[in-house]
Amino acid sequence: MKKEPILIVNEKELMDNIPLDEVLIEEIEKGFVALSEGKATVPPIMMIPVPQRDGEVDIKSAFVHTMDLMAVKIASGFFENPDLGLPSQSGQMLVLSTVTGMLHGVLLDNGYLTQIRTAAAGAIAAKYFAKKTIHTVGVFGSGVQARYQMEALALVRRFERIVMFSLDPPERKQAFVDDMKERLNVEVIVAENGADLVAASDVVVTTTPSRKAYFSPEWVKKGLHITCMGSDAEDKQELYADVFRKADVIACDLLSQSTRLGELRAVKEAGIITDFSSVREIGQVISGTKSGRQSDDEVTICDLTGVGVQDTMVAMLAYTLAKNKGLGISI
Amino acid sequence: MKKEPILIVNEKELMDNIPLDEVLIEEIEKGFVALSEGKATVPPIMMIPVPQRDGEVDIKSAFVHTMDLMAVKIASGFFENPDLGLPSQSGQMLVLSTVTGMLHGVLLDNGYLTQIRTAAAGAIAAKYFAKKTIHTVGVFGSGVQARYQMEALALVRRFERIVMFSLDPPERKQAFVDDMKERLNVEVIVAENGADLVAASDVVVTTTPSRKAYFSPEWVKKGLHITCMGSDAEDKQELYADVFRKADVIACDLLSQSTRLGELRAVKEAGIITDFSSVREIGQVISGTKSGRQSDDEVTICDLTGVGVQDTMVAMLAYTLAKNKGLGISI
Repeated sequence: MKKEPILIVNEKELMDNIPLDEVLIEEIEKGFVALSEGKATVPPIMMIPVPQRDGEVDIKSAFVHTMDLMAVKIASGFFENPDLGLPSQSGQMLVLSTVTGMLHGVLLDNGYLTQIRTAAAGAIAAKYFAKKTIHTVGVFGSGVQARYQMEALALVRRFERIVMFSLDPPERKQAFVDDMKERLNVEVIVAENGADLVAASDVVVTTTPSRKAYFSPEWVKKGLHITCMGSDAEDKQELYADVFRKADVIACDLLSQSTRLGELRAVKEAGIITDFSSVREIGQVISGTKSGRQSDDEVTICDLTGVGVQDTMVAMLAYTLAKNKGLGISI
Repeated sequence: MKKEPILIVNEKELMDNIPLDEVLIEEIEKGFVALSEGKATVPPIMMIPVPQRDGEVDIKSAFVHTMDLMAVKIASGFFENPDLGLPSQSGQMLVLSTVTGMLHGVLLDNGYLTQIRTAAAGAIAAKYFAKKTIHTVGVFGSGVQARYQMEALALVRRFERIVMFSLDPPERKQAFVDDMKERLNVEVIVAENGADLVAASDVVVTTTPSRKAYFSPEWVKKGLHITCMGSDAEDKQELYADVFRKADVIACDLLSQSTRLGELRAVKEAGIITDFSSVREIGQVISGTKSGRQSDDEVTICDLTGVGVQDTMVAMLAYTLAKNKGLGISI
């Protein structure tokens, strides 16, 4: 066997060539199934705080046992960077062979692959839990991930309208409206408040980094599906824990992690659920071991925190596509 | 501030340009001092086992608080690789800014930087613990690290003779002899057994991956210094624990790690030392907080397991030199 050359692919090439599409969704689904079947090794996240710069470097990885490649993701968040004229977030993924341990690829994606693998998980949640026929999608937040979530959702459900609520300044909200109209060819409305947003929506996606719950249990109505993807840390929360009392079906990406970092943390702490065996992992629903939505009246919630298998699956797909398309440089 | 380009440097450029020398030793010393003074953040090692290939991927990092760069090392050991005609070990280091979190360098060193930072630690142990005047150095093992250890030692002590003992086949032992003669211009002798080796030596370095103790307490004599660098895992051991009863001074790189992965693990388990406060970390000796060798009669042992600050220091040095010399390619 000859040593494989190392393929280095930059952010622009990845953004131009690795789309958020059905192929990606399918790969991420495979990762979730492997995770729920115990066929993935996911070590604890390595976190290196750099407090003097309000920064942190996080390292995630996952080995999916049936795959011949795996990813190691190194992601940085340094919140004084904007003062230096640089983005807060940066990052890259290494692609290693699970046959030889050797480095095959360096994906200088600067977080792009994380954005699309996160959005793909949102699409998967809607695919299994949202009603088949929907008209309006609500989204809390008007940032980059809010847009990717809407694009991902459009891959699994048709809808005619987006209702958005956000605390961002008017020009950022307008940019979201213009961007979504153009990309998805749907009506885009800015809601006055959260209650109005939920009242108008069949599916709601929460994408904010809120550290204080804002989603009220009174807003919940028959047939609603909520995908929560904002909370991914112990101090984050978007939904009041009581919202979960109204749910007929509760799902998450990885139970052990969602009850620690996701919305389910507050639910657990408040004692709203004591027996978590009824909470299903999305991988169990994809594989058919557990059910998704059973009727149009059910209220469903899926709590996503982001798992290493998503990184491994998106990195493997990106590396393979880049290699086949002749992108990047080989060393 | 503009985004820094990413410098990618390959193995050959690193081997040709980043020497094992006094500059490296000085940088590694700074890392050890920071570690012992609590000025370094060293997260637990991330280990991803790949049992079906007898493999493992290990990820190490350390943030030295006074440095504006840090390293993340991804090292693989896949022990079926030789059957595929590939080396078992591979690896690379990423160099990140501790100011912005951004990637500045990718050092495709394939383990070379680990070899020289490990050897530099051996030189530092001898610098502070070996007698000033020595004649013969003994080394257990005839592999790559055994050679680097001898080269490193020659940077801090003059000696005329190397005595080596190894279980390797004759041609590998002869290659060690020829190589050391040429590189260090010293006499090189293959010992018949371990007892003979130690009897002839002022300093002994153990470099084997042995999982069974072989170094007998009877071999220890006045004035001997032993650097143990083979054991870096819970199941490895080179010295019988009783050897430590004969030591006047016991040192290590990181007490919490050496008592878990190094020779000190067996010492602790056997109850030979109960109060570890007399065991000094090498950083404390470098900074002068604790003493090194006090007389030519003392028996000294230094137990090295390898720590993330060494990786950060060698990667920072290599990146800076590579950048200044115009090596590699910028992306």
